Amino acid sequence: MKIDRVDLFYLAMPDVTAAADGSQDALVVRVVAGHHVGWGECEAAPLPSIAAFVCPMSHGACRPVSMSVIGETLDGPADIQRMSAAVAYNSMDLLQAPHTWSGIEMAMWDLLGKARGEPCWRLLGYDKAYPKTPYASVLFGQTAQETLERARDIRGHGFVAAKFGWAPFGAGVQADRDQLAAAREGIGPDGLLLIDAGQIFWDDVEAAALRIAALEQARALFIEEPFHGAAFNAYAALGARLSTVKTAGGEASHNRYMAEHLIEFARVGYIQIDCGRIGGLWPARQVADYAAARGVTYINHTFTSNLALSASLQPYAGLKDHRLCEYPTTLRQLAVDLTRDHIVPDANGEIIISDAPGLGIDVNRAALREYAQDVEVKVNGKTLFLSPTP
Amino acid sequence: MKIDRVDLFYLAMPDVTAAADGSQDALVVRVVAGHHVGWGECEAAPLPSIAAFVCPMSHGACRPVSMSVIGETLDGPADIQRMSAAVAYNSMDLLQAPHTWSGIEMAMWDLLGKARGEPCWRLLGYDKAYPKTPYASVLFGQTAQETLERARDIRGHGFVAAKFGWAPFGAGVQADRDQLAAAREGIGPDGLLLIDAGQIFWDDVEAAALRIAALEQARALFIEEPFHGAAFNAYAALGARLSTVKTAGGEASHNRYMAEHLIEFARVGYIQIDCGRIGGLWPARQVADYAAARGVTYINHTFTSNLALSASLQPYAGLKDHRLCEYPTTLRQLAVDLTRDHIVPDANGEIIISDAPGLGIDVNRAALREYAQDVEVKVNGKTLFLSPTP
Repeated sequence: MKIDRVDLFYLAMPDVTAAADGSQDALVVRVVAGHHVGWGECEAAPLPSIAAFVCPMSHGACRPVSMSVIGETLDGPADIQRMSAAVAYNSMDLLQAPHTWSGIEMAMWDLLGKARGEPCWRLLGYDKAYPKTPYASVLFGQTAQETLERARDIRGHGFVAAKFGWAPFGAGVQADRDQLAAAREGIGPDGLLLIDAGQIFWDDVEAAALRIAALEQARALFIEEPFHGAAFNAYAALGARLSTVKTAGGEASHNRYMAEHLIEFARVGYIQIDCGRIGGLWPARQVADYAAARGVTYINHTFTSNLALSASLQPYAGLKDHRLCEYPTTLRQLAVDLTRDHIVPDANGEIIISDAPGLGIDVNRAALREYAQDVEVKVNGKTLFLSPTP
Repeated sequence: MKIDRVDLFYLAMPDVTAAADGSQDALVVRVVAGHHVGWGECEAAPLPSIAAFVCPMSHGACRPVSMSVIGETLDGPADIQRMSAAVAYNSMDLLQAPHTWSGIEMAMWDLLGKARGEPCWRLLGYDKAYPKTPYASVLFGQTAQETLERARDIRGHGFVAAKFGWAPFGAGVQADRDQLAAAREGIGPDGLLLIDAGQIFWDDVEAAALRIAALEQARALFIEEPFHGAAFNAYAALGARLSTVKTAGGEASHNRYMAEHLIEFARVGYIQIDCGRIGGLWPARQVADYAAARGVTYINHTFTSNLALSASLQPYAGLKDHRLCEYPTTLRQLAVDLTRDHIVPDANGEIIISDAPGLGIDVNRAALREYAQDVEVKVNGKTLFLSPTP
């Protein structure tokens, strides 16, 4: 097969708010090779990611992503890895490139899986896919009472695990304590409670440490991103002061090295990988192996559609002991409508990873039209990008 | 003062080749606050960087850079640091943002310096600027003979130091040995010889190690970027096997943590910072302090215009013992024409850092017109970007 075309669909809700909710827009990727089609999704700012695909070359180490993809052979996993290396080298100085490439790489695995009638996790080298325990991933309520109700509601819907994140967490020690206690109360004594600090403490270890007692008392499993994603020493310092709680991070990793360094130097207990940022499924698979070998738990990071969710489950589908999975429950309508297939917990509250070919998710063309953002990019009168037809 | 406007000028040569030559295009930034103007330059792919400034918001942690800049107060260094933190937080998930922000940050220091009649290095906290020893930064010749002639020519122009980089280095052990010997011969026995491998060995320590003997024999001062910028363990492993040569790296750092990690975990002997990527002058100044405290030598990374060169000298202007500076000698005409002022070695072959206000470099408006790339970006019929008038 030969990559004939890569189409980038920029979709958005009519209203995009400043909430830390990644499901308000999407950059969906369609890769076409002959009569084969694959779909992927970048977890990225759509316009800069489109620009990274179509921009004129700046020099040999700053080429657009398209130059390493269009016209290339795609007959097996080795071809995807070859293109991945080509993008990393040819687009070395194009910072946005890994975000653009991630959705393309994902779509290539989908295409390959469909062409071979195999699920992606099998192409990635796993014999079997194990069920995952989903945690409902939501934002904190504006008040502790709201968080309590949100947690009860989640439990009421059959989830045994929930993650609460972002503001107002970090606003004050007492307010945070109240929020944590409310989340614990709502999820119940036997529920799994996870917290996402949304980098609010930047690299201030002492500020984060003021929350340790409340975190331990609420029996949080982990505290995610208390700091800037690259503040390794802050993570390590906080981690050393925690007893039962562990640190978590990794969503911003845009290559496998960054994730490995979070394990090696920041000493996180949970590594969270977004396949829409790290370069797709293969580097995520490499990180999963790296984590497993070091006693660190791998978890997907997903706050967008079920296409991205399916992709995010593939890299650790075969790791039986890495059971938790992030499962967004408050997606905006765009992310719901984007796929015809939806991943829902079974009667036991578990996520069964599909063995349908590719990513096993059918994209809804009507949604590509309904939420389409009409983009036009011209340089010197030449049209470099025009939104494609679904 | 209040930031009224940020103009982004995308310039390019009529022909852009695949050579690893960053002077073939440019993204020049003009910041306007009342009647004050400052200039900066991003070392970045222009179109994605423009997109990162004007794109619609994706969510609260993925906002365009413009949202953290336009209308903000700029009365002193603390305002620049505040905006820097705002961009890092508000554009957390917009990977290209640091490259866009770098040129803006640089232009803000220039503006502030001009408004106060002070050179940027003084605003950064230095009392005095020390001279630097420039190394001519060029690409290897296609043959060893070409490299020999290039090295002789450099020496003939009064440079005592030269760096040779990129392909064909890495092609073969014997060919590399010949190239290194030719470079040493050309620069003379007392010349300072530096080598840039252009990441050719990716993370293959053994492949790089095959060049150790030739590097030590040619008395190279450092081997720059033998590996992917994030392959810390490969750097550390190679470094441990070197005797007289040291490793160098850091140009890709897009925040100060990345540079600090190269020092702490990759154990480079030289840290090379590009102010057009790391977020401008202030994070570079922080890295300079960090390096100096740990016995690591700070060097600028510059392969573009003299505007970028002046900016890159400011963060370590006051560090007397960090003497070397990268000095591109084979700039394409666009980068030469871009500035009216040019930084040239004095009679002793040294670079004297100007004490003119700001960056001390006058931008040539005619060049902004001559090399202008006419960019138009529209989303849903609304024009988000149109190339500004010089």
